Amino acid sequence: MNTLFYFYTMIPTQSISTPTLLLDKKKCFLNISRMSEKAKKNQVTYRPHLKTPQSIEVGRWYREFGVKAVTVSSVRMAEYFAADGWQDITIAFPVNILEIEAINRLAGEITLNLLVESFETVDFLGKQLNNPVNIFIKVDTGYHRAGIASDKIQQMEELTRRITQSEKLTFKGLLTHAGHSYSARTTTEIMQIYNDTLGKMRELKKHFLKEFPETLISIGDTPTCSIAENFEGADEVRPGNLIFYDWKMVEISVCQPEQIAVVMACPVVSVHPERNEVILYGGSVHFSKDNYTGKNGKPEYGKIVHLTNDGWSLPEEGNVISSLSQEHGILSGTPEFISTLKPGMLVGALPAHSCLTADCMKYYLTTEGEKIEMLNLAHR
Amino acid sequence: MNTLFYFYTMIPTQSISTPTLLLDKKKCFLNISRMSEKAKKNQVTYRPHLKTPQSIEVGRWYREFGVKAVTVSSVRMAEYFAADGWQDITIAFPVNILEIEAINRLAGEITLNLLVESFETVDFLGKQLNNPVNIFIKVDTGYHRAGIASDKIQQMEELTRRITQSEKLTFKGLLTHAGHSYSARTTTEIMQIYNDTLGKMRELKKHFLKEFPETLISIGDTPTCSIAENFEGADEVRPGNLIFYDWKMVEISVCQPEQIAVVMACPVVSVHPERNEVILYGGSVHFSKDNYTGKNGKPEYGKIVHLTNDGWSLPEEGNVISSLSQEHGILSGTPEFISTLKPGMLVGALPAHSCLTADCMKYYLTTEGEKIEMLNLAHR
Repeated sequence: MNTLFYFYTMIPTQSISTPTLLLDKKKCFLNISRMSEKAKKNQVTYRPHLKTPQSIEVGRWYREFGVKAVTVSSVRMAEYFAADGWQDITIAFPVNILEIEAINRLAGEITLNLLVESFETVDFLGKQLNNPVNIFIKVDTGYHRAGIASDKIQQMEELTRRITQSEKLTFKGLLTHAGHSYSARTTTEIMQIYNDTLGKMRELKKHFLKEFPETLISIGDTPTCSIAENFEGADEVRPGNLIFYDWKMVEISVCQPEQIAVVMACPVVSVHPERNEVILYGGSVHFSKDNYTGKNGKPEYGKIVHLTNDGWSLPEEGNVISSLSQEHGILSGTPEFISTLKPGMLVGALPAHSCLTADCMKYYLTTEGEKIEMLNLAHR
Repeated sequence: MNTLFYFYTMIPTQSISTPTLLLDKKKCFLNISRMSEKAKKNQVTYRPHLKTPQSIEVGRWYREFGVKAVTVSSVRMAEYFAADGWQDITIAFPVNILEIEAINRLAGEITLNLLVESFETVDFLGKQLNNPVNIFIKVDTGYHRAGIASDKIQQMEELTRRITQSEKLTFKGLLTHAGHSYSARTTTEIMQIYNDTLGKMRELKKHFLKEFPETLISIGDTPTCSIAENFEGADEVRPGNLIFYDWKMVEISVCQPEQIAVVMACPVVSVHPERNEVILYGGSVHFSKDNYTGKNGKPEYGKIVHLTNDGWSLPEEGNVISSLSQEHGILSGTPEFISTLKPGMLVGALPAHSCLTADCMKYYLTTEGEKIEMLNLAHR
């Protein structure tokens, strides 16, 4: 082993004194690569959702895999990535007409793809836009959060009519997010949701192709895109979470623990062997309050791992974050593990939900020792 | 009415295009005033916890009530408020020895009060501190998060022995946080927790007064401090949340809806009358995922109010935020209310947990139209 190289690529744990989100670039590349290959094999566009990493630097990693178009969840996030040279951005959130000024500005600079689901918004855009944008109709295939229900074809047709009435709006296609896949418990359930969703989108495509021969179908959640091998009928996939994955994704068998690419390094501040608990510096302001259901039916906020020189171990059974308050995290562990911990040590925690955890933090520290800035609060 | 004055003090809603946390200064002053009066009547120090507002400007409001000492939850928050002239700060979090450098720096500038609960930490501080600090022993009176169990007197005595061995450490007293009061359902339950906690602390004080005649007792949570009228036995109170309150506090009868001093203004982006839902721009990155249990037993994330020229209305039955994802909030409402909403309108949401909601945001917009910066991410 080249020890000099080794020295320069280990985590500078001695520089960590507060909760710090570690990022394993190699794992990110493997996760991106796997999806990129699958997208190429299926001849669909890979348009990753950047709301997960929220970082210009991480966004650049996708370019090494030929990614040219991305997805974001807010206008300000679009501005942030446009400033780094991304020329084709989809804002995967129903158009907020109050941001028309920024939308107009962006539309003058890049290829901007917007999501609509209401007549009012389309009419407003038709009147207020100075620059051309592409429009996707948001379709609800069963998640019931946003979008027009997939069986409301007349409503969609009326919407396309209004879209085509404005010379500033170009109808590009239909977009869905099968977010109910996150509540699935098994890969079988995930595949049922996937097949149902893609089936509905294929039917719609068949219908719209008659009038709009270039209609695109965009699908996107991490669970279905990770499990499915065949994207036939789709034209683009937009998974975001899969660059990092997290313990929620392990719980529903969407990824393996070793694929999780982020871990929160947390200082131990107090040890309570009498109740097999340790207080960590690392609370809901670092992890968010998102959680998965642990073995005992109670919410858990992360799985504990050992930090190593160049990354982290796999979690051992029985060591979890059982509770979070603003700055405190409670590590519940086995007596054996608890007995090894002392104030001033660092432990790692694989987060329940990496998107929200990343959103809480200001920068990543890569396992190679590089500090990578994020957008975060700048977009609120 | 002085219309000119009125014009200059209304909320500039036309400037709001993204989720914005509105702050009613008058309500804050009333909330602070009520606690300040009660503290004076009881002759205890009011040392408010500033982790709730996380803002220098809001911190200054306390000074108008004679507050001279404050509480924070991290070293960086202490640095932030020390820079604004606060000279007496308690960091209400077990000492994180990895931050010894910053602690030493702070201890050279202000009166710094630290919390300890372990021998290792006291020994470490004794060796590593260059400047004097005050030490409180953290006592666990039933919350079981941090602290030494209140019946472990020997352990506390051993700790005071070690504290007094270092000339840099001064034993100041015993501090507890009855955080289990947040899980109470009624004021009777809250008062039971309060009486139990204060009873335990009084016993301990009696014990420690023999050797340390100046032993202070510090208590602190918003539920008990709001409900209790008699602080006999305590020397200081540290509630933080009560400056803003929130719907969790209303749920357990700790405050009235009209006392809540913050509301999130959220743009309506899509209306779904077929399921009595509206999509708001305002998600877990703005509210946090904290919640209370609604009437139907499901989690709720906020109560919907109307924004008015100079503030907001009280919530009407049946209009709530029923679900949050990263940027989306789902408003579930009555058919009557839903029928009044259109994309581009603003609605208000009283948050479930104001501390975490404030932590998500970058600034407040007061109902008088003033923008107030916060610390937030700067401390991670």
